[in-house]
Amino acid sequence: MSAKASSPMSSFHADCNAARPAWTQWIRSSNNVTQQFLAIGGQPDFVSLAGGLPAAELYPVSAVRDATGRALDRWGAKALEYGPVEGSPALRAAIADRMITSTGGIFGPENVLLTTGAMQGLDLLGKVLVDPGDLIVAQFPTYLGALDAWRPRGPRYEKLTWDLDRPGFETVLPAAKFVYAVPNYSNPTGVLVSQEKRAALLRKVVAAGTWLVEDDPYLPLQLDGPAGPSILAADASAGRRGAYAGSVVYLGTLSKSVVPGLRVGWVIAAPDMIQMLALAKQSSDLSSGMFAQAVALELLEAGTEAAHIPELVACYRQRRDALCDAADRSLGEWFEWDRPPGGMFLWLRAKHAGIDTNDLYPFALAEKVAFVPGSVFDPDDGLRTAMRLNFTRNAPDVIAEGVRRLERAVRRYLASNSRRIG
Amino acid sequence: MSAKASSPMSSFHADCNAARPAWTQWIRSSNNVTQQFLAIGGQPDFVSLAGGLPAAELYPVSAVRDATGRALDRWGAKALEYGPVEGSPALRAAIADRMITSTGGIFGPENVLLTTGAMQGLDLLGKVLVDPGDLIVAQFPTYLGALDAWRPRGPRYEKLTWDLDRPGFETVLPAAKFVYAVPNYSNPTGVLVSQEKRAALLRKVVAAGTWLVEDDPYLPLQLDGPAGPSILAADASAGRRGAYAGSVVYLGTLSKSVVPGLRVGWVIAAPDMIQMLALAKQSSDLSSGMFAQAVALELLEAGTEAAHIPELVACYRQRRDALCDAADRSLGEWFEWDRPPGGMFLWLRAKHAGIDTNDLYPFALAEKVAFVPGSVFDPDDGLRTAMRLNFTRNAPDVIAEGVRRLERAVRRYLASNSRRIG
Repeated sequence: MSAKASSPMSSFHADCNAARPAWTQWIRSSNNVTQQFLAIGGQPDFVSLAGGLPAAELYPVSAVRDATGRALDRWGAKALEYGPVEGSPALRAAIADRMITSTGGIFGPENVLLTTGAMQGLDLLGKVLVDPGDLIVAQFPTYLGALDAWRPRGPRYEKLTWDLDRPGFETVLPAAKFVYAVPNYSNPTGVLVSQEKRAALLRKVVAAGTWLVEDDPYLPLQLDGPAGPSILAADASAGRRGAYAGSVVYLGTLSKSVVPGLRVGWVIAAPDMIQMLALAKQSSDLSSGMFAQAVALELLEAGTEAAHIPELVACYRQRRDALCDAADRSLGEWFEWDRPPGGMFLWLRAKHAGIDTNDLYPFALAEKVAFVPGSVFDPDDGLRTAMRLNFTRNAPDVIAEGVRRLERAVRRYLASNSRRIG
Repeated sequence: MSAKASSPMSSFHADCNAARPAWTQWIRSSNNVTQQFLAIGGQPDFVSLAGGLPAAELYPVSAVRDATGRALDRWGAKALEYGPVEGSPALRAAIADRMITSTGGIFGPENVLLTTGAMQGLDLLGKVLVDPGDLIVAQFPTYLGALDAWRPRGPRYEKLTWDLDRPGFETVLPAAKFVYAVPNYSNPTGVLVSQEKRAALLRKVVAAGTWLVEDDPYLPLQLDGPAGPSILAADASAGRRGAYAGSVVYLGTLSKSVVPGLRVGWVIAAPDMIQMLALAKQSSDLSSGMFAQAVALELLEAGTEAAHIPELVACYRQRRDALCDAADRSLGEWFEWDRPPGGMFLWLRAKHAGIDTNDLYPFALAEKVAFVPGSVFDPDDGLRTAMRLNFTRNAPDVIAEGVRRLERAVRRYLASNSRRIG
């Protein structure tokens, strides 16, 4: 196209922004918190206790290198193809086999959809189940990423607090498109839900005829002994006739137990749910990368994940303890918490209502430390007396330094508060 | 969980399916055509002229192997991290640089979002621009994947036919959230849109204050000489003050020019659009795989793509000719077509209205050959007198065999038709 032909266009440049179409409605109620945290993570003199990142120095780089070579030897050009929408058949079978081993249930590849991280599973669930105004019953406080994933679908929420016998809960359930729970070391609270409560929730969900979405990324990070069976495991071992067809929709991932950068996650569910999710996946990205899936299969078959988990657990246990000890020294005056038996997070609850963690946040940034304010884990934005701290990403001395900065931030915030009040 | 604790659940298994919540509304108007085609592609005695797959035997497997080693040497654990939502900074910069070279415009990393294939760019556009009932003006017939991507957002459509001066078109445009066009070797028609029409469309879009989505996956597949500048190129070279801030949203991919299995695609657009798309991407899959992006960067820097394209073009030209020749021999009685100057597809239009390609389809499957019926490229499902044939996937002799089967299918279909009518 000649400069002459294109010159009439340039005159429209100045004012075209103003006239542009409006963004969608959900964008206006959205946030870029995760984006901010990922960006902060890259600043060298910053201590980020936000995010939910693994210890990068433990990533099994040479095992990935070897796995890549083996994957290309084994599959050749097939490892570089568009995959089936549902993902690599061999990896689907491997994930199904693993669930059989750990649950005693019966799973086939038809129970497995491979996704771009477990996060995509949440997005796809919203696409197949949530029309504007539909109800989700979500474990409260709720994983930020799940709220993000479903926001474009315009749901409304009821809070699941594990007080399962509270009045009204059972009348709410039949109206829910699904119930969302993170029983193992929940994000953000680190809570491990008891087997009794898991069983009770499953009974109620099945009776109500809805779906139970069990998000289980932290399963490998059992710092204080076994977590016990997943809800899927309990449900699958109860119904032993043919491939799993129950009400649990289970999300898993290699992001915490191997590396996140392959973006290999999966959904395990009844075949009819898998088929609908695959339809939504087709319209989202056609398929996840076959190359990454071929590499993941090699890593699983070579036992890399199995060998890597004890190393992770030892490291994260030390870091969890470092964070709890530092919090004891610096933050006990204003916050309380339960030592999390696994996962990646410590959840601090303010001891008195005068602390608003949204307002504290800029003081923390000024001290070059980041945390996640509780409000982002609340669909109504109201949870302002808590914060989430990550303990997996940083070495113990960095964690300790971060908590010292946080202590300074709290002191300055409170001093500023009393000046404003006084 | 003990067998005893879980046994009460099993009694609910039998009837829980019946009571399950309804799927979302868009699912009911959806199709699994792409999924079917990907599945058919795997059957050994089938000739699939459907799908849109590259020639797998040309995939540069050893270049990918080398690139993987270099990527891990260069980035180590960083290649295995969660990336920033927008993607690898180095690859964003490389994509921006490439656009500068080919357009003379000014692009920075802030103009680039990396996606899981270009398909995800379409999904994200729907998320940030389309609320239920919003208008999309889409080049007609319309790429099936685009219709799939936007269906969950519930849009309505106006058809863009490149008859740009037709009455009413300019009054429609200002109401559109965006205009969608595939100017280079459109899917499904193979049409190369003239520079004059591109410039005219851009002028009208800018005047109307809407966005122009230019989907350009087939750019590398210029079988009969240069395609000329993209609409983005024309727009960017017209506005030379600072990074691109115009109205074109451009989608590119490595899926056609290198390999699809890395799932590396990108959007190039004004920074405000990139920021909104990144927000939608964060809530879709957090980020695409950093590992695949690191490998893609090596492939670009090593010139693998540049060296690979002439080989692809030579191969695909031969296959395009083989398909046109076979169609001349077998299908000219019932169909007409234009020899596509590039891309991956031949578009057959029935010469008389008695041929319905939806009805022809099962006859083709019975002959073990697949095509894509025209109806799937029509948001209203009404385009029943055309079909799309792919010429890139199969060797010339397989293409010829596929067309012979298609001829038999047409004969049997017409015979059955006349029996039914007679």
